[in-house]
Amino acid sequence: MDHFINRKEDIVQQAIEGIVAASGSRLARLDGFPFVRVVVRKHCDKSKVAIVSGGGCGHEPAHAGFVGEGMLTAAVCGDVFASPSVDAVLAGIQAVTGPAGCLLIVKNYTGDRLNFGLAAARARELGLKVNMVVVQDDIAIPGLTKPRGVAGTLFVHKIAGAMAEKGAALDAVTEAAKRAAERAVSIGMSLGSCTVPGSSRENRIPPGTIELGLGIHGEPGAEQVPYQSAEKAVTDAAEKLKTHLEDKKYVALLNNLGGTTALEMAVLTEELRKSVIGPRVSHVVGPAAMMTALDMHGFSISLYPLDERDTDLLAAPAPLTAWPGMQALALPARLPVPAPYAGTEPLASQHPKRAALIQAACRALISAEADLNLLDARSGDGDTGTTVATAARALADRINRLPLADLTQLFPALSRELTQTMGGSSGVLLAIFFSAAGEACASGRSPISALKFGMNRIQEVGGAQLGDRTLIDALSPALDRLADGLDAAAKAARSGADATAGMLQANAGRASYISAKQLEGNVDPGAEAVARLFEHLSQALAANS
Amino acid sequence: MDHFINRKEDIVQQAIEGIVAASGSRLARLDGFPFVRVVVRKHCDKSKVAIVSGGGCGHEPAHAGFVGEGMLTAAVCGDVFASPSVDAVLAGIQAVTGPAGCLLIVKNYTGDRLNFGLAAARARELGLKVNMVVVQDDIAIPGLTKPRGVAGTLFVHKIAGAMAEKGAALDAVTEAAKRAAERAVSIGMSLGSCTVPGSSRENRIPPGTIELGLGIHGEPGAEQVPYQSAEKAVTDAAEKLKTHLEDKKYVALLNNLGGTTALEMAVLTEELRKSVIGPRVSHVVGPAAMMTALDMHGFSISLYPLDERDTDLLAAPAPLTAWPGMQALALPARLPVPAPYAGTEPLASQHPKRAALIQAACRALISAEADLNLLDARSGDGDTGTTVATAARALADRINRLPLADLTQLFPALSRELTQTMGGSSGVLLAIFFSAAGEACASGRSPISALKFGMNRIQEVGGAQLGDRTLIDALSPALDRLADGLDAAAKAARSGADATAGMLQANAGRASYISAKQLEGNVDPGAEAVARLFEHLSQALAANS
Repeated sequence: MDHFINRKEDIVQQAIEGIVAASGSRLARLDGFPFVRVVVRKHCDKSKVAIVSGGGCGHEPAHAGFVGEGMLTAAVCGDVFASPSVDAVLAGIQAVTGPAGCLLIVKNYTGDRLNFGLAAARARELGLKVNMVVVQDDIAIPGLTKPRGVAGTLFVHKIAGAMAEKGAALDAVTEAAKRAAERAVSIGMSLGSCTVPGSSRENRIPPGTIELGLGIHGEPGAEQVPYQSAEKAVTDAAEKLKTHLEDKKYVALLNNLGGTTALEMAVLTEELRKSVIGPRVSHVVGPAAMMTALDMHGFSISLYPLDERDTDLLAAPAPLTAWPGMQALALPARLPVPAPYAGTEPLASQHPKRAALIQAACRALISAEADLNLLDARSGDGDTGTTVATAARALADRINRLPLADLTQLFPALSRELTQTMGGSSGVLLAIFFSAAGEACASGRSPISALKFGMNRIQEVGGAQLGDRTLIDALSPALDRLADGLDAAAKAARSGADATAGMLQANAGRASYISAKQLEGNVDPGAEAVARLFEHLSQALAANS
Repeated sequence: MDHFINRKEDIVQQAIEGIVAASGSRLARLDGFPFVRVVVRKHCDKSKVAIVSGGGCGHEPAHAGFVGEGMLTAAVCGDVFASPSVDAVLAGIQAVTGPAGCLLIVKNYTGDRLNFGLAAARARELGLKVNMVVVQDDIAIPGLTKPRGVAGTLFVHKIAGAMAEKGAALDAVTEAAKRAAERAVSIGMSLGSCTVPGSSRENRIPPGTIELGLGIHGEPGAEQVPYQSAEKAVTDAAEKLKTHLEDKKYVALLNNLGGTTALEMAVLTEELRKSVIGPRVSHVVGPAAMMTALDMHGFSISLYPLDERDTDLLAAPAPLTAWPGMQALALPARLPVPAPYAGTEPLASQHPKRAALIQAACRALISAEADLNLLDARSGDGDTGTTVATAARALADRINRLPLADLTQLFPALSRELTQTMGGSSGVLLAIFFSAAGEACASGRSPISALKFGMNRIQEVGGAQLGDRTLIDALSPALDRLADGLDAAAKAARSGADATAGMLQANAGRASYISAKQLEGNVDPGAEAVARLFEHLSQALAANS
């Protein structure tokens, strides 16, 4: 599987450079590549307790993404899924630790415990005050005395970071972090494993299966069960978490393990709210990718009990993109849908001349059905004639219900008729045409000017210009000549429609997907419909006069 | 492929509920499911211009994630990759539009243009002031007159949203949005297509291939080329973008198309900084997933020219989790690595009695090599004896260089020796043991008390308790009796070590992965080493006295 990397051995260094470069000058890195890979706050106040965390990479944004005001002071990065070296951790500690001392927050993996532990020992030899807290929040395997540290670690980062930011002493910060580490519980679930860059994808989890209680390194989870639904997945997670809950309100950290879409994470959020533990979850952090396992298509839920002390610390501002903040989780608020426009149907009125004109137009389009379908079949799906004729038949049937006497009402009424009876893009565009014409009439424009306004609006919405091989190529010249009478308009429309047969570069509408060869010599069916309409109206008027 | 959804037809509604529920009561939705799916600000100031956008889902966090102060007022959601209906858009417009009017920001897709366009027409019929701006920022296909709207749309959201927030009038907001829509350019690249929930994955892009200039719906890109590296991918994107740049500074919006890891996005950020357009990119938004194509393993780069006017609007605060803010992009700052601790090597000093004791200890461990290996082979990989003996040999060789006369120096020196010569977890743990013992000595504790302090520290770091079948089970009773002499300590160590043969539930160290059956009757090799050590020292002392 390909990844957006260069050399496998440079991933972490390059990623660190990218993170620091895009930090808005908030961050720096220690100048010790390739062995010392430490991201630090660029301006670090050593009168405050330093909070140092880290571990293997592949969990981004953890841990470098959480370096910043109110959370970490430094993150020490190992290779993908591998603990950093003792010397790297020590360099990180030394770089940020002043008289206030330093707290190391370590996830419970042997490599991390040992390397951070020895680095702490070395730092103490140098006279630095260093404490260490180990996080083991994973509840996947019941009865395990030393569970893994997973996404619940972020509660510890946040609580310790907020205390340190407020200027608390090392012992107090350590005590708070220990309390947080003891109280956080997490469980992860995934529909697939992850892909280590430079390696092939591990297909441990078969399709149709979900793994419960898995960690953040692609290591196998506690059990595999058939996958049913988001609801069932959250139910299973909630049942496991429930047994660990006290009679308190909780904040849930909803973590994307990397490869889950934001759409799915939102569905999972809703399922969590509706789950058996939902009523206990008063707040939420996320959903967001915070402690990932590269591209793992899974999620984890971490819970933390809220009391006054920790609520304030968790809610304290930490202006980091990676930290989504703590929000109240609430029943989704609903606002009423505004009253629909359809309630304002105008009253029918008489205008024999307009009625005759519309009837003639409908006849023109109905009689053109077969020809237009034939034309459309050469550049589209052969239904233009039927689409137009169907709408024309419906309009002819309803002509007596229209507000014929008032153009400012008639045009919008025609628009609404077409919305109901005419399918496809053309129905929408003609509805927009008549709606805009009505708007123009209402603002005092002449009928011809109103029709031009309507045409401009459909060009704005539909994007077609003259020469784009659409009905505009017939309609625009027709409207330009309409002041000289229907006969002049009809001639202009015909000439414009015929010209579309030579327009081989269609830039709008469906014909833009068709090759020039297929278009050559064929008139655009929309333009042809307009030409037929004006020709028919011109003849009908001549016959009537 | 499985997804974290329930019924396919409920995805969008459930996702909206989740987004609104977790919004901290900032958002609401219109009560018109399943057809009207509109996310709005819960408290919306209708004296300001409303900014309404939307389109098909599958691009999360766009668009619902950008509803909030300083960006959108409402987002109208269609099905996955499908435009919302006219009635849904109209409901959205009506819900948030007051006397100041409304601007629709629409990505250039026919369905969106038509449905938003007709909804705008209907809203105008209701007397609302509505303008519409179409975004077409994709530069993938040269010469295309109507490109797609992709991630550059977010610049338009931000600029229009910031102006509206400041109270600008509809015409001014519209003009700014038009300018933004005209100036934004984007290009996308991907190593794979996306998976629509409920459908199987489309494998259009073969392994080893990258697609250039692709959109946000899994539709084919402009070209496929062999994939080489992150550097080459960004170079190709930068070359295409370069031809569109004026002589200005630019902000780059670095967008994760959904399935790219944060690690890769950070590498891509660094490549962008180093690319041919890097010197022109003074600011960056992201990297982050902002306008996704579900789980597509790709990215897009959108550029926008910065002048005073738009810089302020882009930099204006928008307290939305989905908007990462605009940051300066800079050469990654470096801080020097702190001076290494190794510079403080203490001077050698003499202490014949301690030298003899250490020599005896080394002999004890060297002579136990084969036995310990044998024991370890029953519960591990059979190298405990060699690991211990190798370190003992090295220590014996260097004994004259140690600061023997001063325990506060000797213990840390032993710690450092072991770091260099003893592999595995045990080397690190013993280094921590002696380092802590030195720390305790320095603070005035007796040697025995100091050794106990060291043992406590390795328990803290390593996590082993009494009864966990580790060297602690011999060391702890030995230290408890050490005040009574080496003989008593040796007996206690032996008794403790022998007891490990009956400890069948290993909770720490490598033996925790081994079944009880394999452990039964075998003494833990670490505990055995400690017992042998004390027994040997006791005999050596007896022989000397």
